[in-house]
Amino acid sequence: MKRCFGTPGIASGLVLRIFQCLFASASIAVMASSSGFSSATSFCYLIAAMGLQVLWSFGLACLDIHALRVKKDLQSQILLSLVVVGDWVTAILALAASSSSAGVMVLLERDTKYCKLDPLLSCNMFQISIAFAFIAWFLLAISSHTVFWLLASLS
Amino acid sequence: MKRCFGTPGIASGLVLRIFQCLFASASIAVMASSSGFSSATSFCYLIAAMGLQVLWSFGLACLDIHALRVKKDLQSQILLSLVVVGDWVTAILALAASSSSAGVMVLLERDTKYCKLDPLLSCNMFQISIAFAFIAWFLLAISSHTVFWLLASLS
Repeated sequence: MKRCFGTPGIASGLVLRIFQCLFASASIAVMASSSGFSSATSFCYLIAAMGLQVLWSFGLACLDIHALRVKKDLQSQILLSLVVVGDWVTAILALAASSSSAGVMVLLERDTKYCKLDPLLSCNMFQISIAFAFIAWFLLAISSHTVFWLLASLS
Repeated sequence: MKRCFGTPGIASGLVLRIFQCLFASASIAVMASSSGFSSATSFCYLIAAMGLQVLWSFGLACLDIHALRVKKDLQSQILLSLVVVGDWVTAILALAASSSSAGVMVLLERDTKYCKLDPLLSCNMFQISIAFAFIAWFLLAISSHTVFWLLASLS
């Protein structure tokens, strides 16, 4: 069993999944509690993508906890292939959602100065939510690369 | 020498690089020729990211042509590591730029109906440019995964 940082079934892998879950949940919570988010499709898409990431990372965290408790080796080729495909899809959707929200945010804040014109829009909250989403994506990208590396060196 | 689709130094790798270059150039050309693109930072960022992709893919296409002409094996570990890091950075920037432009486009087209209100904005051209950028990113993602797989199985 290879033991590099973030490998499924070991403690660092579990910690990575828990932090992915936490940051994605924080992103959803901040975005959903800010007023006016539903006026932009990108912000709704961010909530959906982060929701998917929470489900995915939570599922894999549960699998890691199970593996740690029964001392099971999770490094079978089929399981790693499933994890890597799921990680890719989730990571691509998360990056796309974070970037599209960031693009809209820059348009509202800098290009049109709409944030100053409409005090009902909670632009600061949007920015915090997008920052959390980028951190969640970055942690997921680390996991996905570790698993892909492991899969390639196994085959 | 491993010969899967898109490997550097073989014909399919060269074709992939040429198409990345073509789609990225087409995206820049369409965006730069459409009126009003400079009003959104995301559209300017798309041009910058696609410019970087053109330079990167063109450089690697030249390397592939050289390797094909002198029948040189490009699969050294150091060269593949450099290519994989460059591919990742370029692919992440390209996806971020395409998504942020797509987010702004949805805001202008659907959420605010600004495209109908301002006939000076060439929204159709923006959409074509973003579509080309997504295709260029997808082709780059194929290359980067192939090279990463190759590097992992070499080490």
